[in-house]
Amino acid sequence: MKLYDYPGVPNPRRLNIFMAEKGIKFPRIEVDLLKGEQLTADFRLKSPNCDVPVLELDDGTCISQTNAIARYLEARHPEPPLFGATDQEIGLVEMWNQICFTNGFQAVADLFRNGPDWFDGRALVGPHNYDKIPALVERGRQRIMNFYDDLNQHLAHRSYLAGNNFSMADITALVTIDFAEWAGVAMPDGHEHLHLWHQQISQRPSVVANS
Amino acid sequence: MKLYDYPGVPNPRRLNIFMAEKGIKFPRIEVDLLKGEQLTADFRLKSPNCDVPVLELDDGTCISQTNAIARYLEARHPEPPLFGATDQEIGLVEMWNQICFTNGFQAVADLFRNGPDWFDGRALVGPHNYDKIPALVERGRQRIMNFYDDLNQHLAHRSYLAGNNFSMADITALVTIDFAEWAGVAMPDGHEHLHLWHQQISQRPSVVANS
Repeated sequence: MKLYDYPGVPNPRRLNIFMAEKGIKFPRIEVDLLKGEQLTADFRLKSPNCDVPVLELDDGTCISQTNAIARYLEARHPEPPLFGATDQEIGLVEMWNQICFTNGFQAVADLFRNGPDWFDGRALVGPHNYDKIPALVERGRQRIMNFYDDLNQHLAHRSYLAGNNFSMADITALVTIDFAEWAGVAMPDGHEHLHLWHQQISQRPSVVANS
Repeated sequence: MKLYDYPGVPNPRRLNIFMAEKGIKFPRIEVDLLKGEQLTADFRLKSPNCDVPVLELDDGTCISQTNAIARYLEARHPEPPLFGATDQEIGLVEMWNQICFTNGFQAVADLFRNGPDWFDGRALVGPHNYDKIPALVERGRQRIMNFYDDLNQHLAHRSYLAGNNFSMADITALVTIDFAEWAGVAMPDGHEHLHLWHQQISQRPSVVANS
């Protein structure tokens, strides 16, 4: 098996933290996103949405989409469980992973891709070109601030986002927040629960190794 | 257990088809979306993103987000598997479920919620109010047309979207296409693989019972 990867950008970072938690390693092939290598016809055969990461299995089957590769790895390497240890946790982890991705991650992506010139005509990840919509920058910023508020409130009585253990939902939220900070929208002062959770998660070896 | 539901709208329809495939039924409580019952403070305690469906467990725990409820049900009622029967299928189903949701479902939602007056200030599902962005209507339409093209090509040599069996990915794609048609963007003529797949899936008893 081999992993098509581009270190440092948000979705590959999510998968790399996930793999580090499970102690999984694969040979890596770097796809240079700055050169547009993800948009070639050859790479699209491996990744229909032209994104990384992609896991190529020994029979040539390719799995793309971060959550999908993570689900495959969870099935093969169940310990430690990162999508929930009980039926109830399995539901709650998916719930919070999805809420964080939709309300947080995609909001940062809107902010990030609809502003700078270098995304002209590339407002969305994928094989198709779409013009930027400048109004999405300000809406992205509003959504991120609301995401911080909501998450701070949710974490008032919890150590982790979903259930009693660290999970993929925490990974998605952490990477989203670091992505937002990098894009210029840092966590506001005074969100003590959110700051404490972020500080503790950031100390995990899997996160330190992928920072 | 009980299910907070609003029949006929796309995400509840996804879950109802999923449950029908597994033969699962719960007592239902209708949340009247047209009256805004999903936006009350009481309902937000059950569904932090103010959306349906929500499954309330016997201990009072609430799971929202369609994929999350479906994951919980898959863990408790594994047969027939709708998130993949093998490790590889587990990865591929999540991959295509995610691609169809992002590139299809969310595109239709953009088209649908950024046009009509009745969504003024409610361009996004959730507890927060956001103004409409009119440019998302046309971009939504472009994305849906590209989604049809991509799916037609993917289905050229397949009976189902992911692996060898009907799965949640097929449910998401079917509901997305019917949602798009309802919103005025029907499948174009000439996409024979897509039309054939849609016709066959639409005949399943689970879909007929939720049409």
